[in-house]
Amino acid sequence: MKYSFNVVMTCDGCKNAIDRVLNRLGVEEKTISLESQEVFVITDKPYDAVLETIKKTGKEVRSGKTIE
Amino acid sequence: MKYSFNVVMTCDGCKNAIDRVLNRLGVEEKTISLESQEVFVITDKPYDAVLETIKKTGKEVRSGKTIE
Repeated sequence: MKYSFNVVMTCDGCKNAIDRVLNRLGVEEKTISLESQEVFVITDKPYDAVLETIKKTGKEVRSGKTIE
Repeated sequence: MKYSFNVVMTCDGCKNAIDRVLNRLGVEEKTISLESQEVFVITDKPYDAVLETIKKTGKEVRSGKTIE
């Protein structure tokens, strides 16, 4: 599955935090853009599991969607 | 109980993320310093619960201790 989330990130530390928690969840294919505030993920994990993991970083998740 | 954690935070977004997850945990008395990288907490929650919550932000926790 491919998911995209708009997450408020304001520095590389924010970006790295998202990267780290997704790694821990077992998500290996991802692109995180500080510029576009986008977290793009390819994984077999359910959408809600990925969303919850991102939310637990304390970052604001503005929106999220399943792409395919 | 009073706990202190040294957490790598590099911008106000990092600091606010820590603040947000601690609020969700029910920790109301806290001081978070970006300058000293210190998260100081007064709570009745167990140490491990607070530590786990901070770790789930994806921030690096350099050290932590119970003060009293």
